[in-house]
Parts: sequence; C-alpha cells; structure tokens
Amino acid sequence: MKPTDMNVFEKLESEVRSYCRSFPTVFSKAIGSKMWDESGKEYIDFFAGAGALNYGHNDPIMKSKLVDYILDDGITHSLDMASTAKGQFLETFNETILKPRNLNYKIMFPGPTGTNTVESALKLARKATGRTDIISFTNGFHGMTIGALSVTGNSFKRKGAGIPLHNVVTMPYDSFVHDKLDTLEYLERFLEDRGSGVAIPAAMILETVQGEGGINAASYEWLQRIERICKRWGILLIIDDVQAGVGRTGTFFSFEKAGITPDIVCISKSIGGYGLPLALTLIQPELDIWAPGEHNGTFRGNNHAFVTATAALSYWENPKFEASISKKSEKTKAFLEKLIADYPEIKGHFRGRGLMVGVCSEVEGFASKVAAEAFERGLIMETSGPEDEVFKLFPALTIEDELLEKGFSIIEESVKAVVGQKEAIAN
Amino acid sequence: MKPTDMNVFEKLESEVRSYCRSFPTVFSKAIGSKMWDESGKEYIDFFAGAGALNYGHNDPIMKSKLVDYILDDGITHSLDMASTAKGQFLETFNETILKPRNLNYKIMFPGPTGTNTVESALKLARKATGRTDIISFTNGFHGMTIGALSVTGNSFKRKGAGIPLHNVVTMPYDSFVHDKLDTLEYLERFLEDRGSGVAIPAAMILETVQGEGGINAASYEWLQRIERICKRWGILLIIDDVQAGVGRTGTFFSFEKAGITPDIVCISKSIGGYGLPLALTLIQPELDIWAPGEHNGTFRGNNHAFVTATAALSYWENPKFEASISKKSEKTKAFLEKLIADYPEIKGHFRGRGLMVGVCSEVEGFASKVAAEAFERGLIMETSGPEDEVFKLFPALTIEDELLEKGFSIIEESVKAVVGQKEAIAN
Amino acid sequence: MKPTDMNVFEKLESEVRSYCRSFPTVFSKAIGSKMWDESGKEYIDFFAGAGALNYGHNDPIMKSKLVDYILDDGITHSLDMASTAKGQFLETFNETILKPRNLNYKIMFPGPTGTNTVESALKLARKATGRTDIISFTNGFHGMTIGALSVTGNSFKRKGAGIPLHNVVTMPYDSFVHDKLDTLEYLERFLEDRGSGVAIPAAMILETVQGEGGINAASYEWLQRIERICKRWGILLIIDDVQAGVGRTGTFFSFEKAGITPDIVCISKSIGGYGLPLALTLIQPELDIWAPGEHNGTFRGNNHAFVTATAALSYWENPKFEASISKKSEKTKAFLEKLIADYPEIKGHFRGRGLMVGVCSEVEGFASKVAAEAFERGLIMETSGPEDEVFKLFPALTIEDELLEKGFSIIEESVKAVVGQKEAIAN
Amino acid sequence: MKPTDMNVFEKLESEVRSYCRSFPTVFSKAIGSKMWDESGKEYIDFFAGAGALNYGHNDPIMKSKLVDYILDDGITHSLDMASTAKGQFLETFNETILKPRNLNYKIMFPGPTGTNTVESALKLARKATGRTDIISFTNGFHGMTIGALSVTGNSFKRKGAGIPLHNVVTMPYDSFVHDKLDTLEYLERFLEDRGSGVAIPAAMILETVQGEGGINAASYEWLQRIERICKRWGILLIIDDVQAGVGRTGTFFSFEKAGITPDIVCISKSIGGYGLPLALTLIQPELDIWAPGEHNGTFRGNNHAFVTATAALSYWENPKFEASISKKSEKTKAFLEKLIADYPEIKGHFRGRGLMVGVCSEVEGFASKVAAEAFERGLIMETSGPEDEVFKLFPALTIEDELLEKGFSIIEESVKAVVGQKEAIAN
Repeated sequence: MKPTDMNVFEKLESEVRSYCRSFPTVFSKAIGSKMWDESGKEYIDFFAGAGALNYGHNDPIMKSKLVDYILDDGITHSLDMASTAKGQFLETFNETILKPRNLNYKIMFPGPTGTNTVESALKLARKATGRTDIISFTNGFHGMTIGALSVTGNSFKRKGAGIPLHNVVTMPYDSFVHDKLDTLEYLERFLEDRGSGVAIPAAMILETVQGEGGINAASYEWLQRIERICKRWGILLIIDDVQAGVGRTGTFFSFEKAGITPDIVCISKSIGGYGLPLALTLIQPELDIWAPGEHNGTFRGNNHAFVTATAALSYWENPKFEASISKKSEKTKAFLEKLIADYPEIKGHFRGRGLMVGVCSEVEGFASKVAAEAFERGLIMETSGPEDEVFKLFPALTIEDELLEKGFSIIEESVKAVVGQKEAIAN
Repeated sequence: MKPTDMNVFEKLESEVRSYCRSFPTVFSKAIGSKMWDESGKEYIDFFAGAGALNYGHNDPIMKSKLVDYILDDGITHSLDMASTAKGQFLETFNETILKPRNLNYKIMFPGPTGTNTVESALKLARKATGRTDIISFTNGFHGMTIGALSVTGNSFKRKGAGIPLHNVVTMPYDSFVHDKLDTLEYLERFLEDRGSGVAIPAAMILETVQGEGGINAASYEWLQRIERICKRWGILLIIDDVQAGVGRTGTFFSFEKAGITPDIVCISKSIGGYGLPLALTLIQPELDIWAPGEHNGTFRGNNHAFVTATAALSYWENPKFEASISKKSEKTKAFLEKLIADYPEIKGHFRGRGLMVGVCSEVEGFASKVAAEAFERGLIMETSGPEDEVFKLFPALTIEDELLEKGFSIIEESVKAVVGQKEAIAN
Repeated sequence: MKPTDMNVFEKLESEVRSYCRSFPTVFSKAIGSKMWDESGKEYIDFFAGAGALNYGHNDPIMKSKLVDYILDDGITHSLDMASTAKGQFLETFNETILKPRNLNYKIMFPGPTGTNTVESALKLARKATGRTDIISFTNGFHGMTIGALSVTGNSFKRKGAGIPLHNVVTMPYDSFVHDKLDTLEYLERFLEDRGSGVAIPAAMILETVQGEGGINAASYEWLQRIERICKRWGILLIIDDVQAGVGRTGTFFSFEKAGITPDIVCISKSIGGYGLPLALTLIQPELDIWAPGEHNGTFRGNNHAFVTATAALSYWENPKFEASISKKSEKTKAFLEKLIADYPEIKGHFRGRGLMVGVCSEVEGFASKVAAEAFERGLIMETSGPEDEVFKLFPALTIEDELLEKGFSIIEESVKAVVGQKEAIAN
Repeated sequence: MKPTDMNVFEKLESEVRSYCRSFPTVFSKAIGSKMWDESGKEYIDFFAGAGALNYGHNDPIMKSKLVDYILDDGITHSLDMASTAKGQFLETFNETILKPRNLNYKIMFPGPTGTNTVESALKLARKATGRTDIISFTNGFHGMTIGALSVTGNSFKRKGAGIPLHNVVTMPYDSFVHDKLDTLEYLERFLEDRGSGVAIPAAMILETVQGEGGINAASYEWLQRIERICKRWGILLIIDDVQAGVGRTGTFFSFEKAGITPDIVCISKSIGGYGLPLALTLIQPELDIWAPGEHNGTFRGNNHAFVTATAALSYWENPKFEASISKKSEKTKAFLEKLIADYPEIKGHFRGRGLMVGVCSEVEGFASKVAAEAFERGLIMETSGPEDEVFKLFPALTIEDELLEKGFSIIEESVKAVVGQKEAIAN
C-alpha cells in the first residue's frame, strides 16, 4: 500500500482540522498505549483520544467480541429499536456499575457524542423545572452545538457560534479567583438576593475535573457544598462526566469519592470502550418525564459500541482495576511534582486528579513547546486551558508501568530541551 | 444465549425511547433488506435506519473490509489526527463523488451525526457573512441540538428545547399553503421590503425532499429559484442532505438534477455505508474560513466508518447503480399510485422522489395503522409528517426486486386490513 | 430676545436628531394649524406632531384649563398616586369614550410614551398566556425600546438595537405581496400546521393603518378575519392605536368601523390633547392580572396631561366632530386622487384612511423632494414608508377649511416644481 | 367641586397601580415640600416623586416661566424640531452644568423617561463597540422596557418580562457579598480569563447610589477602579444618574466627587425641574455615531419641560445651593445615626449619600410598617430594596429646615410606634 500523502489533508480537509497540525504524521496502527505512523515510527500515547481511550487502543477482548459480532451479522444500526446488544449493555451497566454504587438511574441514549448528552440534559432540566437558565462554571467545556456551547466558557469557542449565547449564567469554579477566595459564598449570595439579576436556574452543570479548561479539580468539599446549594434551591445538578468519567479520575464516576448524587449525569467518550461513538444520559427516575421521541437522533443506538462497551465494563468487576489506576496516579503525580521542583524556571503547578493530570506553567507558550518536543521524541500529549498553559497527561488507565515511565522520561527530556532553548537564547 | 427480556428496556431505558414502541421486539440479526428478531421472525426492512442504511444491513464487502481493518489493529479512534483510513476516504470521496460532478468542496468532519453537521454549517454561515439569522422552511427537520432545533419546524420537538428558539425565520416550503400558491413570491417580498421585519439572513437551510416533515419534494424549478434568490441577496445556500443524500432520491446528492450548487452541504446517515456514525460538512473552498479547532468533537474522526464509507463509494463507480435505483423508484411509485387509485377511501396522495416516497392519507390515524399492520405482517415501515399522516417507504437502494415486491404485497394487505376494520366498524 | 443660533443644535445636540434636519429653522410659536419660526415666517402644519397634535397646537380651552391648574398649584408630578386630575380623566374617559362604544377596559398608565404602552401590552400578553412569541406585521412600527423594537419591521431601526431581536414572527400585512394575494391564508396555514416552525403566539400586534410603514390601511374585512383567527387560536389581539387612534382615521379608535374588539389597546400621542406626554394601555378586565408595580415608570402619571386630556375629550361629546373629520377626509382624498390623475408621471397611489393619508410615488426620491419643496413654501409635511416613498398628509382634525385648501395648493405647487425640475433636467 | 371617589381608581385603573395603595388618599395640591389631599390634610413630602421633584413641588419661578410660555403660545410639542425653548435649554445646560465641570458631552433627547435614556445608551454602546453584552450590577434598577429591564436586578420585575432576558451579565456591586469582600477582584478575573464564559462587554451600566435596590452607595474608590477596569478593557462606562443625579447626592452629577468621567450618562427625573417628563443621554462626542433618526420617539422634545428645566438650572449658578444640600445631608445622616443608636431593636444600618439616604432594618417588614405609620402622621416616604427592607428619605433638596425636622420627628414617632406594637404583642 502506498503511503498517504499528508497533502491530501491540506488539500481536501477543512481548515478547522486541528490535532493533525500538532501531530503531523499519518497514523495507521495502534495497540494498547502505542501508536504507529505509516513510516513505522512508534509513539507512546499520553493523550488517549482526549479521554475516549481509557482502555487503550484496540483492546484484544473487545476486539474479539466486536469481530465476532460483525461476522455473525449482528444488528449494526437500529436507531432506538430494541436489540440484543443494547439489552445486554443495559443490563450489564445496571449490574456492574449502577447497583454496586447504589445508584438508580434511567439510561437515555441521546446520540453518540458528548455534546448530544449535554444537550439532552439541559433540555430535560428545563422541562422538569419549567425554568430557562442554567448555571455553568468558568472554564467549563461541554460541547460545540449551540445548547452545549452556551454553557462552555472558552471565548474562542463561544465566538464560533456567530450568535450571542443565552440562558446561562457563568459562576466561578472552585479556586477561580484565587485559592483563598470561597467562590460558593458568591454563588449563594446571587441566589439568595432577589435583586441579584440571577434567577434560580433549572440546573447547574459542571465537570468535577475540567478537562479542556485547564485540568482544574474541584475539591470534594466544594462539590458537596454545590450539591447542598442545589438541594436548598431546588436546582438540578448535572455532572458532565464525559471526560472525567469512566475511571479517568480513579473511580468509574468522577464524583464517587465526593459522595454526591447528581440528578443527571452525562457520559460519553470512553463508555464505548473501544473508541466507538456512544453517549449516555443518566437520569434520576422521577425526572424521566420525556415524551417518546421528544429528543432523538439517528445514531443514538450504535450497536458496535454496545458490544465493546459491554465488554469494557468487565474491567470494573474486579476491584484491582481501581487499585491499579490509583497506583499509576500516585506515580504520575510524584513524577510531576518532582519535575516542578527540579525545574523551578518553568513555574509549574500540579493540576488534576487520578490519571487526569497536568502541569500548568506560568511561562507563556511553555506547555505547547513541551508537547511539541515530546511528539518529536515519540510521545503524544496535548495542552489544555484557555491559554494552552497546561500540558496534560492522559495515559490509558491500562498503560503498562514500563511505558508510563518511558513517557515520563520523554517528558523530562522535553522539558529540559525547552528550558535549554531559553537559556541558549538568554545567553 | 437466553433471550432478552423486553422489560429490560422499560425498566432501564428512558421514556424518551420511541421506535422500540412501534416495533416491539428485540432484533438480533440483519443482512441486506432483512432483519430477524430473537425469536427468528424475519422482517423486510422498508425503513433502512431512517435513511442510514441505503446499502442495506451488513453489506458483505464493507463487512469484510471492516473486519480486516479491525483485525489489523487499524486506528479506531483518533479525533482529527491524520490516519490512513481517513486519507483514503478523503481521496476516494473526491475522486468518486466530487470530481465527476464537477464539485469542489472542502470536507469537514464535524462530529458523527446529522445535528453536528447542521450546527457546523450554521456556525460557518454566520461567521462567513457576519449575520445572525437563518431562513429555514416549514416542516424542515435538521436535528435536536439547540442550533439545529431552532431551524426545525416541528412544534413538539421545538417545545422540547425548554427555551425560546432564536435567530431563525421560517418561510413556506414549496406548496406549503397550497399547490397554486407561489411561496417564493412571499419569500422574496420579505427580502425586498426593508420594512418587512426580516433581515437578509446568513443562510437558507433546506432539504430538497423533507424526510421527517412529510416526504414533501420541492420541485426542481423551486430549488433553482431558491438558488437565484440566494445569489441575488448574497445569502448562503445550505442543503441538508442528511436524509435525502447518498442516493436516496436517485442521485448521490439529492440536488444534482435540479442543477444547483449549494454553498454548504450537510451529509450524514448513509455516508458511513454500514450504518456507523459519520458526518461531513462540504464547504465551498472560499468559505472555509474556520480557525483550527473552532468547531470540534471527540468522534469527528470515526475510522471504522471511514473504512466502510470508502468501500461504499465503490457502488457509485458504476453508472448501473443509479439506473437500478431509478428502476426501483419507478416501480415503487407505480405501486403507490395504483394503491391510491384502488383505495380511494384512504384519500391518499403520492409524496416524494426516488426511493424516498410515501402516501399521505387525509384519513386521520390511517398511516400509523397501516404501519402497525405491516409490522404484524413482517414489514418495517415508519410514518412521517407533523400529524404522522404519511406512511413512508424507505427500502434500501440495494433491495432485491423480489423483496421489494413482497413488501408491496404486505403494504397492500395492510391497507386492506385497515380499510376493512373501518368498514367493519361502519357496518 | 436674541434669535437662537441654529448652530447650537449642531454643536450640542446628538447626531441622532432628525426632524430639525428636514425643517431647518427654529420654531417659536404655534396656534391651531399654524406655526411660526423665530423670523416670523408662518407655516401650515400638515404634520401635527406625527399624530400627537390631532387637536392642533395650543388649543385655547385646554390652554386655559392647564394655566388655571398650574396657577392653583395642582399636583404636577405624583407617580401613580391618586390625584384629582387623574380621577377626572379616568371618569371622563370612561363616560365619554368607553361607555358610548360599549367598551369595557381597565386603564393602565404605563409611562407617558408610545413605546411604554407597547412594552406593557407585550408583557401582559405574555404573562396572561404563558407564551413568549408575538406575531407582528410587515412595516409595523411600535417603538424604539427593545421590546417594542422587536415587533417593528423597519430594518434600519432594527439594526439600531445592536443585538438580534427575538420572540417575534413577522407576518405579511394586508396587501403586502400584492392586492390579489390573501395574506391571511398564508398566516393561518402557519398556525394550523404543527410543523410550520411558528408557535401559537401570545398575541398579534398591529396598527389598523400603518403610520410609519407607508400609510397602509388594512381593510375592515382583513381586520375582522384577524380577530376571528385570534379567537380561534386563543391569541390576544393588541391594536396599537398610538398613531391611528384619537380620531385620526375618523373615529376615536381606529378599529371602530371594523367592528372588532381588541384585547389590549395601546394609546398615546394625541390622548394628552395638548401635545403633552401621556399613554394608556387599555386592557380587557379579565386580562388585568398585573401584580401591583409589576410594570412602573416615573412619569406614568403626568397630571398636566390629565388636565388637557380631559378637556380634549369634550370634543367627542358632540357627534359633529366626527362628521367634520369625515368631511375633511373626503376633501383630502378627492384632492389627492385628482393630483394623482393630473400628474401621471409621479406614478402615485392613494394611501390611508380618514386624515391619515398620503401618496405613494413609484418615482424614487419623489416624496422627499415634494416635502422639501412644500417646506420652502410654508407647509410642514413628512414622508413615510421603508424607502420614504410616501408623502404624508396629517393635518390637525380641527384644521380650518381655508388652511386645508391652502395646504393643498402648496402641495400641488410643490409637485409641479419637482416634476418641472425633472423635465428641465430631461430637456 | 365634589371630592373624587377613591373607588374610581379601583374600578377603572389597572391592578398594576401601586403608590396609590401605599398612600390611599386623593392628592390635589402641592407647594414646595408640602402636599394636600382633597380633604385638606397636609403632608410633608419625603418622597419627592422618587427623585423627580428635587426642587420640590411647583417651584414659583419655574411656574411663572411655564405659565408665561403657555400664555404666549410657545411651541408645546415639536418632536425634535429646533425650537426656541430647546435651544435655550441646550445652551444653558452647556454653560451652567457641563463647562464648569470641564465636561464635554453631546446631548441626546431619547424620549422623556428614564427607561428611554437607558435604552438609547445601551443601543449606542453596542453600536459603538460592535459587542452585544452589557455588564450590569446586582440590585441595579434601570427601567421597565425590555432593554432596560434586562440590566435590572430585581427578580419580580424581571419575571414581568414574560421572556428570558438576554445579553447581560450581572456582576456584584460594591459590598454585595459583605463589606470585606472586594467585588472587583472577582469582576476582573472574569474579564482576564479567556475561559470565563464572560465576553468583554460593550459597556458597564451602574448607579453610583442604587435608588431602588436598597440605597446602596458605592465607594468613590470602587467607582474609580470601575473606571480603570473599563479603560483597561475598552469597555464603555454608562452611569445611570436618573435617580442619583441632579443634585440628589450633593453634586449635580452623582459621580463628580469620585472624579470619574463616564462615556455615557443617563439623566431624567429631576432634570425637568418641575416634575415634567424629560430625559437626556449625554454622550462623549467621539461616541456620537448615531445615524439621524436611528433612535426616536414622539415626546423626545417636551418644550414645557425645556422651559422649566432651563429655569431650574439657575439653582446651580450659585455655589450656596450645593452647600445647603450638604448641610441638610449632614443633619439627616446625624438624625438617622442617632435613631439607629437609640433603637437598637430595629437593627438598623445607615445607607446612602447626600439626600439619598435610608435605614436598612434587619427586622422583617419593619421598614414598610414605619412608612405606613409615617403616612398616618402626615409624612410621605417609601421603601426600597429587594425585600423592601429600607425606609428611604428623599426630601426635596430645597426643603425648609423646619419641615425637615418636623419630618424627622414624625419618623421617630413612627419608629417608636412600630417598636411599641412589637413590644405590646410580645408582652
């Protein structure tokens, strides 16, 4: 097979393309935490499809189940008709995930992407409360369609709407102003004061750790107070667990350790297990007041993804899985904290939770340079934050220790290289 | 394997589920235009995933390519990084579809669903023109996220938003008021008169045949005049070919025979070939003014779908394919016209174009009853229109003649049964 | 007293000023239908404060009552406290206007301007129905604040908002497309079809004769059908009688001869009688569900205007008043029709009803030139319509016959002058 | 003359009426700071038309000028044509107010009410910057039409809109959370962080002392920082001086002592001097980019009000006027502080600046009871704040010392009475 001409993307694909600019090569193969480009060059993947590949690439068990399913002519596309694959997923998800956590949610398939689940959650919250406003949080990221974009903080993305975005009030996320300032005192004053200009909203929507907004982790205490405030004012709590969920922060749902129970949970990305499009909206049963077909979508039942999603859930049957994530998380945190200490000139700050971590550098442009250097050295890693000020470590939860450490080495070398350039220039 | 309990859907899935209510059985297998439920009962599929399965279920060539790709550990998920599968799709689409039609579009992957492509088209039209309003048409259907929903006509779906929908003006589609009334005279008066309250919009968005809105087909002349009006006023023309495209009306794009060239084309549903989530936004090169990443989405690069989409395009290399669709379309139209003539009591009217056809019955509730009877007899068919007044024939483009005719028989029997019930009741 | 320097306006007043540009002199005195500038030049007023001076300038009876009131230290400003002057106005309005017409309205003082009454009407209609949308009509004009502007058709005024205007659907006014086309057939199709994208609105708002939009008069039959459509769908009917009301079209309310009963009526301009700021919102009693103070405003009770308004209502006690308006209207219409016939080159069309009339000329720029020539000759007259294509005759209802005819002569001379210029240029 | 039946208001006036409920009598006469009802009962006015009667009722010099003007048949109504009265006002305002304060503003007449000037200011700010959002502040009050209401904080008033209010972000006013918390640190973080969800707005709009929102006075330092923040980000600063302006806080403009220069100033209420409707929008010359007639209104030129406004400005020619306000302000503050100290059970806090002051009581319902008791004793006074928790002293700036002190006595008696009731109930 002749190699793909990189020009084909420039010539034929829209200017909107982005990751292929940061990682300018043509990928052809991937297993676990490794990817290969067409020239055979190997890369360690610390990106994991921005959280869509928590189980790594092409997991062999899922792969086998998927191939069998295809060979057997299992239903591929069926909108939201009942199918065997969907039935199995529903039961397995209930048995493996919901029941053991004492959670009782109705499951909605809102279309197979993160923005679909967010849109469905906002609609339902408005319908259930009869209110129009949503409280979102600074640096929250929820999607690119107009409803989800309206609750997204990033000004570049918001401008892309081409219209003013409405029915949303942005409140300060944990530590937004600075670490000492209690942002919830502000929020609650706005709710309490009937002259504040802020109406009691239908819902609050938030990520427990903000993936695109700079890997900001809200403290458990902050999350618990958010839940109490929601309860006090009859506001629905929507946790957008699209990026932080499915184990990324150490537990299946990112909010488990905070001990809170959201009214609605948005899930996508890694829920399909294999990187196939799938999304869920989890709904407290009493809120499940949808009329049939009130929200729909052609690909809301992606049976291939049901097959791999069901297989993926078996990871969660064994408590060792969570333990292994925890161990890797500690190792990663320790590495990053040492890195920050060893290279004070990068003015770095640790960010995140579990395997959703990064380093925020106060040095302008630093994070992007490190990511670029890392790519040269065979490591894929992206940046985050409104100014791309964070380099973001998102290894698969299943990454082998050896690869994880090899990744660390590349990062350290990359940091060294960027620091060195500066010194070279300075001298 | 034990059969799936139908209760699992009632117990665990949200009340929003819909098709599983019309087709109350658990499907497990499908090949071409046949589906089987878990009990082994066979169904003829005249529904085709609402247009997502134009090549039928589990096409053997696509299937084989997909399985090989998976077994080779080809890239599954890669956001919008360059991949071999994506490169091949881009080139093939350009060579097989665009070039032979003298079309020159940049290709955007906006997220894998119809609503994603519509949202991206609206954003881009607003950015490119600096205007905010969009003209949509009565009974247009464009998706369920807030941006796409705002240009969708159906009042039940619109109410689901829970907020007023803005930045849109709905104009009458071809023959909306009645056949004699020229709806474009109205539309153009609104544009001409600077006191009309209707600003020159960023774009008009429309389907050439309205799939959800009642299988209304706009005449070629009407479409040509729409294009001229858009040109006159500097309005971008967006054709939403999500349901009518990819051969459904007889040609790859539904607008080919009208001889028009939209500024932006929205494609999804059958573009993946195999029923896998994929969507394209086709953009006139001079309008491709996106900044990198200004619109994005986790599943915008679904490599499995690229593989099957590329395989599916080979159908279009041979002109016989279009000829065969044409033949089936004529046969279907002839059948429906005879049916309408033979059963005057159903007060039926033929609707549609190509294999996107139906019968609108003036008898309240008739279409739904026929579809229900047909299901009993082993045929899957849905209804359309604001009052579900149309029963809709959407066979795969690849359906065997024998199955097509068998389907016709079932429909006629179903009509007879419903008519008979009425007579029985009347007597 | 030294004459006012015209430069003071250029130097100190905002660029937004407009009429002082069309009528570039400093006015100092006015009685009845005559105005004088500081140099003593006399003008006949065919403008009447755009409908705010239906009884002419400085009516002697009102003047005397007002001066007495002021000299007696009657309450001037009292927000909406009860005052003697307000009590008298309420009773007189009820006795003289409402009762004899079998009308039963609660009276609201929404702030003293037309836009205030429109805003209050829209709010109340939304509150009473729980719906958000309003149907307005092409070339309707309802005011400059955001709520009223959203239902105003003129694109130049709309752009002035600086934001997209929402919650409104513009429908075609009577004869909008052309005389043969029934615009209500169109409107009603949108309401009937649940896929039309147009929701049942809270209200329709319209003028029976459009003052700013081109002196378009809706036929009585059209208004009656509008009322029936509103009743059929439970839509409130708001008549904006700010410009057409208070006798301008021949009866106190402009809708009397159509035999309709609006749910809400907006009144301002001439209601104060003397040209003092005052506005009323008339509300069917069962719709008067305001909470106290839910809408308010500092000048909602302008007692000076109550005094003159009460005096002005005495005109309506004598049926001869309506008869005299009718006679003047006929005379004016006859004059304009002859003018149109005598000067075919102006391609003129008669527009309007009562003393709210004008000539629409198809010749670009003609109306403005005639108005400018008339000003030179001592007649004040303005233009109307989205392209200023209409010259507008708005004499006081009380104008003396002699002055009316003198005004006609000036207009004819002005027309002759403009036509002559053209010919001169053509030769 | 027979007395007015109070029932006429109940029977004929809309339920929206409010002050006539708090002050249930029919007023007929007023001079200076005294009002009389029809029964001849005398009241001291500590309300001053909510700030529209800063010079008291029926000032004899203004009265004489107005009567002369009317008797001379001076122009009453002239839209925005040039008139002698308007020319004199423009010159006098420039000479007496602007020049001595080194201010250079173009003067716009936006319609004669507060909400008109606010709407015009918002439109112009949006036009001048090309941005759509406005930052307003908690408990700000700017008017009842949709544009002004959108920047008003009060939830009861906002709900009255019947539609979601858009294009506004509410930020915390000085001391909103509590005295120790710096609200501008919070505000500026939102502007700095490009992921905050808050775009750089067209303008900030605020009152220096919030009249309706609870007589909250922003510190001069806070106002100066607001101005610096606006300059830093290119945001226009709009001061709404409708209630706090024209001397109410001690200087003509309320912002003089803070040393700031707003880009746009909204003026109404007392500018007319005599309580007649008039409003100004003051605009930095370089921002005066209106097209002629882009904003208009029938009563934007109220010549009677020009006459009295011009006369009223003569108060400002003598520096003793400001000195006298200052003396009265000190006296009033001293009285209120003593009252608070003497009656600790009312848990009172002093609020305000100049003669725009009040007492906020933490005891629920207390302020309303005091106002009711005061009315019984012949003093007119209103309440303020989102929960009516403040009783508000708004005497005319021209009030005689004797009346001021008599008013204080009535207030103290009223406080005593309310405290006594409680004790009586408690015992």
